[in-house]
Amino acid sequence: MDKTEVLIIGQGPAGLSAAIYTGRAGIKTEILGCNPKVAGDYDIDNYFGFPETVSGKELLDLGLKQALRFGTHTECDRVVSIHYGESGGFTVKTETKEIETCSIILSTGLSRKKAPIPGLEKFEGKGISYCVSCDGFFFKNKKVVVAGEGNYAANQALELHEYTNDVTICTLGKKTAISQEFMDRLDIHGIKIIEDSILNLEGDDNLSGIVYSGIGAAPADGIFIALGEASSLDFAASLGLFTKDGFITVDRDMKTNIPGIFAAGDCTGGFLQISKAVGEGAVAAKSAIDFIRETCR
Amino acid sequence: MDKTEVLIIGQGPAGLSAAIYTGRAGIKTEILGCNPKVAGDYDIDNYFGFPETVSGKELLDLGLKQALRFGTHTECDRVVSIHYGESGGFTVKTETKEIETCSIILSTGLSRKKAPIPGLEKFEGKGISYCVSCDGFFFKNKKVVVAGEGNYAANQALELHEYTNDVTICTLGKKTAISQEFMDRLDIHGIKIIEDSILNLEGDDNLSGIVYSGIGAAPADGIFIALGEASSLDFAASLGLFTKDGFITVDRDMKTNIPGIFAAGDCTGGFLQISKAVGEGAVAAKSAIDFIRETCR
Repeated sequence: MDKTEVLIIGQGPAGLSAAIYTGRAGIKTEILGCNPKVAGDYDIDNYFGFPETVSGKELLDLGLKQALRFGTHTECDRVVSIHYGESGGFTVKTETKEIETCSIILSTGLSRKKAPIPGLEKFEGKGISYCVSCDGFFFKNKKVVVAGEGNYAANQALELHEYTNDVTICTLGKKTAISQEFMDRLDIHGIKIIEDSILNLEGDDNLSGIVYSGIGAAPADGIFIALGEASSLDFAASLGLFTKDGFITVDRDMKTNIPGIFAAGDCTGGFLQISKAVGEGAVAAKSAIDFIRETCR
Repeated sequence: MDKTEVLIIGQGPAGLSAAIYTGRAGIKTEILGCNPKVAGDYDIDNYFGFPETVSGKELLDLGLKQALRFGTHTECDRVVSIHYGESGGFTVKTETKEIETCSIILSTGLSRKKAPIPGLEKFEGKGISYCVSCDGFFFKNKKVVVAGEGNYAANQALELHEYTNDVTICTLGKKTAISQEFMDRLDIHGIKIIEDSILNLEGDDNLSGIVYSGIGAAPADGIFIALGEASSLDFAASLGLFTKDGFITVDRDMKTNIPGIFAAGDCTGGFLQISKAVGEGAVAAKSAIDFIRETCR
């Protein structure tokens, strides 16, 4: 298993700014993220130090170069789950490997979109869940569906399989985007994939069935939402991080309520700007550096 | 009297970052400060976006150019006092003029140094004060000394003169650095300047006298500390801003406890870094923009 001192999830300005600090401090730093985007397609005029307009891509390239200069290790890989390590720290599963880390900086940007499932609200907490580690137990030997199209959904389905044999993945009408490695593991456990969208949810009080666009009605006791890649809110749910209005709750030192986990940038809410993300990345790094030196060395 | 919508005090990264935001938002912005320094004489390696080393001066020049691009007005002028305006807002006195403003962003950097006066601690609150607006009243018709060498001390002395005729300035051994305009006003009120240092303070419980290096012992009931230029803590004292451990207390929106007053950068404490200052400047600007639009338009 790979080992690092700080794992930074997200390669936007917050994550790269944090990596510059931890790297310079001699902390073993791994930073994960693929094709980060910043400021959408807009040019940037308001980040201090760039009197001429700079594009998001140019700025990210500069920051990445800077982070690499200080010996941080970057990779295009996506995190599918985070668990508490057996002997302290955290075990992070990515699409390709497992990493053991002393601390984590979450800098994943804006969080999940609403799942396009009609009637979802009615069954929140009555069959709809966002977190296998939190709620998987309640679906022991029941019929469950994981809604999502990617490796994150595949991993959630595999984790759910620990509780029940009846797990299906529904891509909500999207094309499946699961890697061959995950596909093989789904096959072994007989986890099927439905590429239908969901037209309706059924049930009086608790969820009892799903109406699919193609195969029609089918019984179901639970749906675990796992669209696209895992977001900060998904990690928050599985780790028990406090959140408010869809953002991770942090103090002025960018500490979450869990020692060793820090957050920075848009996933913490407030003013969603590069300037703020960069500042928070630096502060989160400082807190992580202090934590690592006190706790893991 | 000059009028502005936001007055930013301090031309370092926090102040300039704030000005870029308020300027772009079409807020009338004035930013004051002289010869700001950043990172001392060190080069900067850890500000996101600059993979090659950049000097503090280069970075400030870039940021200043950027702030000017968005129509902010910058000036080398120093604030000597801030008071609540008679019809809301704030009245800010500088070395050269008075400005009326709807809101203020304090970005003055690190705060005051300890005054080199032996035995100062013994008389804190028993003759030693840092704020004429707060404590001037208690020295009505008493003998008071203002410790400081510049226009800030001169202004404090003039404000003290409203309470007592017996005001002296002591430069603590430094050369007087008071402008001709302030000198003329001190003359009119018979406020003398002593360039001695202070060797000792006398008094049983409360301060009763000062031993100067040149003229020897002289009676005194109070000393108002006003070294160098006014710092964020001096403004905090006169406005009633909450502080902790020598730094301005702010929430995550960079709001102080006084509506319309925001703070950003090193004067708010924590991790004293350009990254953090830039982010906080942006957030303070956002809060100031919202405040101005709701309150002053």
